[in-house]
Amino acid sequence: MEKQVSQSVINRLPRYYRYLGELLSNGIERISSKDLSEKMNVTASQIRQDLNCFGGFGQQGYGYNVEYLYNEIAAILGLNSHYKAILIGAGNMGQALIQNTNFEKRGFSLIGVFDNDPQKIGKEIKGIKISDITDVEQFIKDNHPTMAIISTPRTVVNQIVHKLKDCGVRAFLNFSYAEIANSENVVVENIHLSDSLMRLCYKISAKNAETTKKD
Amino acid sequence: MEKQVSQSVINRLPRYYRYLGELLSNGIERISSKDLSEKMNVTASQIRQDLNCFGGFGQQGYGYNVEYLYNEIAAILGLNSHYKAILIGAGNMGQALIQNTNFEKRGFSLIGVFDNDPQKIGKEIKGIKISDITDVEQFIKDNHPTMAIISTPRTVVNQIVHKLKDCGVRAFLNFSYAEIANSENVVVENIHLSDSLMRLCYKISAKNAETTKKD
Repeated sequence: MEKQVSQSVINRLPRYYRYLGELLSNGIERISSKDLSEKMNVTASQIRQDLNCFGGFGQQGYGYNVEYLYNEIAAILGLNSHYKAILIGAGNMGQALIQNTNFEKRGFSLIGVFDNDPQKIGKEIKGIKISDITDVEQFIKDNHPTMAIISTPRTVVNQIVHKLKDCGVRAFLNFSYAEIANSENVVVENIHLSDSLMRLCYKISAKNAETTKKD
Repeated sequence: MEKQVSQSVINRLPRYYRYLGELLSNGIERISSKDLSEKMNVTASQIRQDLNCFGGFGQQGYGYNVEYLYNEIAAILGLNSHYKAILIGAGNMGQALIQNTNFEKRGFSLIGVFDNDPQKIGKEIKGIKISDITDVEQFIKDNHPTMAIISTPRTVVNQIVHKLKDCGVRAFLNFSYAEIANSENVVVENIHLSDSLMRLCYKISAKNAETTKKD
């Protein structure tokens, strides 16, 4: 990758990819940047700029070839990488994640699930046996996962992340209430449901205030 | 609210709130903008700017009173609003959401859960009986929920959202693979696990490329 790509472009690429996938499965072969922009709720010039970051794939007067663009974005995101991933914490949320997520299509292979609950250890989810968390270090030494999904109670997050970093895990998808910081050697995506709820709450309040003003 | 508050400030407020809550529960009464900024991974001047949007609460040489700031941010976000919410789709993810989310502390009261699966209808989650989705319109007429959490398969999302909008629902927390667009009358928060996975995949690939370059 020659150019530095901004965070906001990276944030939009998965949306493009998802939307192009929908088009593909509906048999649509090409789309103009105008149509794409309306569906995506960004300006056509924004879309052209975004895709130009990666060399651009549109043709004047023709628009974008959906399948080509879909595959190019997959390549840019690295979705065929099959980075090995493990999940820590097989509670409700962890299990729902595994059941509902197609890791293989998102760049990852889930190779291990760990918990500390004797009731869960030994059971299977989607063909993967839940292992004892005390075995995680040996497992990492043997299998070298790149990424860990953290879905544990917040009180144990720091301790677990510290241990996993020591073992060489370099990427985290964090589902816990606690924050995991990006650092020089580690990449992180935090998904905080509580933050989304609070933002939505703010938006409702702001909208109500606006409506009241207009009345 | 007099000033227009930028989206990026709104995005950061829940993080401040979460972190201040942690400080509070650890008995910490005040914090300097420098310490707060280090923990939050934003600059001290950014923090001062953010909080100035709402009148500012810091005192020169003293820093921020944690409890005061915590309560002020709660008020700004409207977390005591108890907006009525319903959940559509009581699958794994919907059930995990209910089990793991303290709606009351995030501005909402969950008052109804709906599904179309006869196996689920009539059962209870956290004291709320799962109702038949065919009853949702009458329920909305009777109870006027403000917000709906969408946790259904993507194929039915548009149809359901359309129906709920017609009934007067004005806010959506969207957990499905499909996108729900913000529009003039409707506020939306989309939580796309697949997007987060893809962004993380990109970050790993970019980091790998960087490391290879350095070697």
